[in-house]
Amino acid sequence: MENKRVVMASRPAGWVTEGNFRIETVPVPKPKDGEVLVKNHWLSLDPYMRGRMNDTKSYAAKQEIGAVMVGGTAGEVVESNNPKFKAGDKVSGMFGWQQYGVSDGTGLNKIDASRAPMSAFLGVLGMPGVTAWVGLLDICQPKEGETVVVSAASGAVGSVVGQIAKLKGARAVGIAGGKAKCDYVVNELGFDACIDYKAGRLNDDLRAAAPKGIDCYFENVGGEILDAVLKQMNAFSRIAVCGLISQYNATEAYGVKTFQSILTNRIKVQGFIVSDRMELWAKALPELVGWVAGGKIKYRETVANGLENAPKAFIGLLKGENFGKQLVKLV
Amino acid sequence: MENKRVVMASRPAGWVTEGNFRIETVPVPKPKDGEVLVKNHWLSLDPYMRGRMNDTKSYAAKQEIGAVMVGGTAGEVVESNNPKFKAGDKVSGMFGWQQYGVSDGTGLNKIDASRAPMSAFLGVLGMPGVTAWVGLLDICQPKEGETVVVSAASGAVGSVVGQIAKLKGARAVGIAGGKAKCDYVVNELGFDACIDYKAGRLNDDLRAAAPKGIDCYFENVGGEILDAVLKQMNAFSRIAVCGLISQYNATEAYGVKTFQSILTNRIKVQGFIVSDRMELWAKALPELVGWVAGGKIKYRETVANGLENAPKAFIGLLKGENFGKQLVKLV
Repeated sequence: MENKRVVMASRPAGWVTEGNFRIETVPVPKPKDGEVLVKNHWLSLDPYMRGRMNDTKSYAAKQEIGAVMVGGTAGEVVESNNPKFKAGDKVSGMFGWQQYGVSDGTGLNKIDASRAPMSAFLGVLGMPGVTAWVGLLDICQPKEGETVVVSAASGAVGSVVGQIAKLKGARAVGIAGGKAKCDYVVNELGFDACIDYKAGRLNDDLRAAAPKGIDCYFENVGGEILDAVLKQMNAFSRIAVCGLISQYNATEAYGVKTFQSILTNRIKVQGFIVSDRMELWAKALPELVGWVAGGKIKYRETVANGLENAPKAFIGLLKGENFGKQLVKLV
Repeated sequence: MENKRVVMASRPAGWVTEGNFRIETVPVPKPKDGEVLVKNHWLSLDPYMRGRMNDTKSYAAKQEIGAVMVGGTAGEVVESNNPKFKAGDKVSGMFGWQQYGVSDGTGLNKIDASRAPMSAFLGVLGMPGVTAWVGLLDICQPKEGETVVVSAASGAVGSVVGQIAKLKGARAVGIAGGKAKCDYVVNELGFDACIDYKAGRLNDDLRAAAPKGIDCYFENVGGEILDAVLKQMNAFSRIAVCGLISQYNATEAYGVKTFQSILTNRIKVQGFIVSDRMELWAKALPELVGWVAGGKIKYRETVANGLENAPKAFIGLLKGENFGKQLVKLV
């Protein structure tokens, strides 16, 4: 039995290319005593992976050259030598870009596939959904009637941010690339407004969409969008910095010109990563499951078929070509 | 009896010039029923005044053209029609750049001149000292053994920040302009190290002075110094943004290139202004008075003589020519 996997062949300089990856075929590992073998059905592709590919200090261990690419997966236990799991259990884990994985149970979580499809546990009910919950409700803490802006609004995280904001009685304004994404954000997800940053009227559109200024900003993008938003932040507003995807492939960092707004408006800015706040999963996940099961939070997936298409799909994600949560279907 | 005063003649474009001010002489106002007349002995000059001179949205009402320049003062009641004050009382207030002021008592605070000289209540025991206390202890919250960096370290605010950091068991690193200021900060104020930003080795010097990275940054300056500090911030570090004096006269804003450190290191950044936190004065001031009276916090003043020299002294302050708290002696 063979295990196909994707390793990092070389570190990217600037934009990632398919040449930075290599597909290998190796034997499926045998689980030892206490271990389980999992067949991965779904692989999650996420912007944070780009940061791991750099040779710089970051919040997480960097991706090593020649090693299997890091990544969240959902699948089924096919062989178990661990009393906590049995064959047939659906689980999510961090097996990376490969078809099979072996684990002693650490970091492996059982999935209740009766409440939502397995893939949802990599998106709206997984790391992206909990990230949205933590950044918006723990850091930004929007009050009823306040205005929440989120960039990458149609993405796996941003789409959940805006929908939770609406559930909490706030005005939700998205920023996304292109009319199709903006239409989806407003018409299907129920945001109050969405700004197409590719239309070239960022400042004016933002002023029109947030006429009372911005109280909370959930940042996924950075660069010019951050500068435009900072100009319209209200006194005592809050910014949760979750991602800066516009910068991940930049060879020269963008200079943020409106930093002074942080002083003038006494803004709180908080960088965060959801894995620092694992204690909040137990509170966030049941709430998210309830909202999704009740139809109050919707989600969308872009699916690439087959592991060999993962590099291409990942590059598309970094360029904003995906629509909603980017997944790779492995079986 | 005449009252000399300084009004803003025109708004500055870029650097302030003496031509932006006009000295006027008017009759001393008569206090009405319920009012007091105060003769100002000291005028405080502070960087925030530069922001008020702009025609832009800010946290405070802007300075109007033709109006007396805003400013904190300390002086003596010379005539009182208000039962809460009597002639001879020493008071601090916000009478602005003038020799006399009339008040109904709002914003007027009695000074206990037996505990410290009247001028100290405009500096270490006034707005600058309380600003240092609030930004460091309420926002940054340094723990014992952590490293605190403060820019404009020899100034009215920065000098107090570093000394409180030491009292709390932290490592205090200052950033200041020139060897004389740095020597003062280390040898007289007891900071562990001080970096002369004019020496041109900001990144290397910062790394040497903060070998375990930076846990708290008290920001008074902005620009290149902010970028250099952001590079060396530790995970879960805190930044109190109190001032950005390098930007106040800039016609083009500096672009902050290391914003990504806020994400990578999950930094909390909080802009603040002390007048939003008036409830903390009652806690901060007695502690500061105790430290100053006990010789645990030292301070230094630069004194300009006579109101007519206030514009020149203010321009010097913006250029960093002062050494410690900048005051104007009015009598």
